[in-house]
Amino acid sequence: MSYFEKFLKTNQAYADLHEDAHLPLHPKTRVAIVTCMDSRLHVAQALGLALGDAHILRNAGGRVTEDTIRSLVISEQQLGTREIVVLHHTDCGAQTFTNEGFAQQLKEDLGVDVKGQDFLPFTDVEDSVREDIALLKASPLIPDDIIISGAVYDVDTGRMHQVD
Amino acid sequence: MSYFEKFLKTNQAYADLHEDAHLPLHPKTRVAIVTCMDSRLHVAQALGLALGDAHILRNAGGRVTEDTIRSLVISEQQLGTREIVVLHHTDCGAQTFTNEGFAQQLKEDLGVDVKGQDFLPFTDVEDSVREDIALLKASPLIPDDIIISGAVYDVDTGRMHQVD
Repeated sequence: MSYFEKFLKTNQAYADLHEDAHLPLHPKTRVAIVTCMDSRLHVAQALGLALGDAHILRNAGGRVTEDTIRSLVISEQQLGTREIVVLHHTDCGAQTFTNEGFAQQLKEDLGVDVKGQDFLPFTDVEDSVREDIALLKASPLIPDDIIISGAVYDVDTGRMHQVD
Repeated sequence: MSYFEKFLKTNQAYADLHEDAHLPLHPKTRVAIVTCMDSRLHVAQALGLALGDAHILRNAGGRVTEDTIRSLVISEQQLGTREIVVLHHTDCGAQTFTNEGFAQQLKEDLGVDVKGQDFLPFTDVEDSVREDIALLKASPLIPDDIIISGAVYDVDTGRMHQVD
């Protein structure tokens, strides 16, 4: 049995308990959170978000990419958000490889040449937050009056601290 | 006060209650979920995921983009996942615009010309799941033995159903 079938079963139980309600499409806090796909970070719980509160964008590393900008433009211009939080975390998978080594590994394991492609690894987690905030601030698609903050989440303690 | 400051306060309370634990970087179920940033979907709760269980990737629409593939390659080849679930949902923001209309709006509101850029809107939510599964299956970076499933989540009832 795939995990998908288990998720479907669990979800039926969740839905049986879930009170039907129509929440608005526009997030209540008008915040979009950009963070990592990591399995040890449950964003809603860690930040105290209720259903309907905030957009949550996640990819490997919580990096700002072309697709992050696409999503944020929809979030802001179409769905009304006015604040962004960039949240990276300790012990990140993006700290476990280099582009060169990863390209070599993919060539060996998958037979695919990805030489020159940036998989966006990083070494210092506060620097990566600052880099991604700088990308947001430099984008003509992110208006200057959008509030942007950065933080690091500790996956062992569950605590986050601000990055200045 | 920005919401970020409120999130920081809530998180300190969360961390105070959180028992320090070191969970492994590799997700326990070896699953990566590709879904939307929508505020009305709390993935961990809806699917019954514990901390450490699964990677969660989210963008506008839950679409498969170049950045989704980047993240999945890291998830699979570096962090051991072997199954992907593409989960879109009802009443999606990606169903509220066309590329042409959105480009016109961004020109008026931000003074930026994005003509020709695909913001990945869709009309039928089951078709968008099938399209994105097809993109994953066509990618040389996603091995053929990765299990791929698709589903739609109803944001009003909390219930998800499989897309064949």
